[in-house]
Amino acid sequence: MKLPAIFDRYRQDVDAELRSALPNGDLPLHEAMRYHLGWIDQAGKPISGGGGKALRPCLCLLACEALRGDHHPALPAAGAVELVHNFSLIHDDIQDGDKERRHRPTVWWLWGKPKAIAAGTAMRSVAGIALSRLDNEAVPVERQLRAAQALDRSCLEMIEGQYLDLSYEGRLDIGVAGYLDMISRKTGALMGCSLEMGAIVGTADGAPAKRFGSFGRKLGLAFQIRDDVLSVWGDEKQTGKPFANDIKRKKNSFPIVFAIEKERGQKQSQLQALYQRQSMDEDTVAAVLARLEEMGAEEQAQTTAREFLKAALAELGGLRLAPEARRDLEETATFLVERDY
Amino acid sequence: MKLPAIFDRYRQDVDAELRSALPNGDLPLHEAMRYHLGWIDQAGKPISGGGGKALRPCLCLLACEALRGDHHPALPAAGAVELVHNFSLIHDDIQDGDKERRHRPTVWWLWGKPKAIAAGTAMRSVAGIALSRLDNEAVPVERQLRAAQALDRSCLEMIEGQYLDLSYEGRLDIGVAGYLDMISRKTGALMGCSLEMGAIVGTADGAPAKRFGSFGRKLGLAFQIRDDVLSVWGDEKQTGKPFANDIKRKKNSFPIVFAIEKERGQKQSQLQALYQRQSMDEDTVAAVLARLEEMGAEEQAQTTAREFLKAALAELGGLRLAPEARRDLEETATFLVERDY
Repeated sequence: MKLPAIFDRYRQDVDAELRSALPNGDLPLHEAMRYHLGWIDQAGKPISGGGGKALRPCLCLLACEALRGDHHPALPAAGAVELVHNFSLIHDDIQDGDKERRHRPTVWWLWGKPKAIAAGTAMRSVAGIALSRLDNEAVPVERQLRAAQALDRSCLEMIEGQYLDLSYEGRLDIGVAGYLDMISRKTGALMGCSLEMGAIVGTADGAPAKRFGSFGRKLGLAFQIRDDVLSVWGDEKQTGKPFANDIKRKKNSFPIVFAIEKERGQKQSQLQALYQRQSMDEDTVAAVLARLEEMGAEEQAQTTAREFLKAALAELGGLRLAPEARRDLEETATFLVERDY
Repeated sequence: MKLPAIFDRYRQDVDAELRSALPNGDLPLHEAMRYHLGWIDQAGKPISGGGGKALRPCLCLLACEALRGDHHPALPAAGAVELVHNFSLIHDDIQDGDKERRHRPTVWWLWGKPKAIAAGTAMRSVAGIALSRLDNEAVPVERQLRAAQALDRSCLEMIEGQYLDLSYEGRLDIGVAGYLDMISRKTGALMGCSLEMGAIVGTADGAPAKRFGSFGRKLGLAFQIRDDVLSVWGDEKQTGKPFANDIKRKKNSFPIVFAIEKERGQKQSQLQALYQRQSMDEDTVAAVLARLEEMGAEEQAQTTAREFLKAALAELGGLRLAPEARRDLEETATFLVERDY
């Protein structure tokens, strides 16, 4: 399944917004932020084609367009969520000790952890400053304030989720409920906020913003579960991550959490024992994968992702939206759950 | 010089504000934040007497009181700056590898660095949420927005300062100008913001807020230089830090930066060589201290601090302030430059 054209439609606008939101300063700190965003290489030379899918900005702009027929006024909000997302990536890489992201060395690997911590928190503050550019879009102050509060709340929740994720490391008793609580915060909160902020800019009416927020949170759950599937069974060439990566890293991702919870008695202990081994060598990984296959963990994950997608789309049901934008939202949401990369 | 009574006057209000701003959640993340703020011990049991001087909230509330005759409406802003300050302390301790703060183990030392990073950024977001409580104080939305923007901007600047400080490690060519640029960001920005936000809540007029911001920034410079003096020559019993602590840690604090810049030729190289030694043993520290004494570095630092204090106080000159509050501001500011702890 190919990336829907919607991502391309907004790409230039989002990129321009991010570039004018980021401080122009020539401090090394600013360089680290630009490097992470994929604008420059290690030597400070401009490069192109970096950065991620900019999914969250796209969702934010779609919500605004669906309600108002124009995405432009939401660009500052779109920039802000992308910056919050990237702040979290910089810190996640430190916390997980990951040396590579998107085929490039991570910020901490190049600048060291102390400076990478600062680069992350700096980007978090830049996000707030980026959002304040809503003032130039003649968005009423009350709604600017609501957007800012949504961003702060979702940011806190996202960090709570990351903290939970860290707390789960090495545990084998999470259960699907514990897992869903974690990803609802870690992934769902900010995706919900992206759509909620887009809707806040899109209309003075508070009700659609709430619905878009719920749509985004459920979509975030679906997106994360699909991500988990790809991080186990995805094609390395398409995902850019090694095959069975999450198993090798002993991540508590959906398939394994589901399988451990569903197994009983000796079989459960065996699977737990496999996942507890000091080194996840090839044989161990193969044994875990075999168990997951026997239990239909991939299908179960994908079914669950589709259920959340369905519940997400239902949130939009009663809303009056521009028909084209509704179709784009549905197409994008579906892509997130069916994608191969 | 004893702590002025003003600190005590606001203490209960600030404490109550912070306690209601912090999430009630029972996540371990919330525990780590409560621990850092000195409300609970490592086992989660409530303790009292923890926390710092709460200097920034005090300055924020004084500004509001001076302009409006009542400090209460600024309490959410006071809480927010204290949380931003404490977020920066949690991260500073990670970045500097400090295992103790205020005679207690630091957050990262107890919870590990990954979780401590999250505890810090979480507190940063809680600060934003705390500030949004200005809405309950019937502060007009335009001014709430101005305060939020001031907080984001000063937070970014503070992080830039911390990053500069990290970049200075091991360098011997900073110079007083480079040092002042660094502390203006690292310490001055947030102190300026404390007073600016208090003034924003205190009056609709934008001019006093600007003046209070400049007052705070200059006071921050004075405060930091005094801090540097105490971190070299302070009495361990009063400061809670080992004698000559900043020399042992090879910090680029005012006295040493001044001395290296002022020395010439061979004497300069000798001082630089002393400060570059792998291990700062007792003899090396004593030799550095002797050089600083010969050059009058302590007096120079203290004189510079007093100059910034004077410049800070001059900012308040033309403002119409409640006379008592003006006296309190002057007394507090003077204390910060003359204190022994």
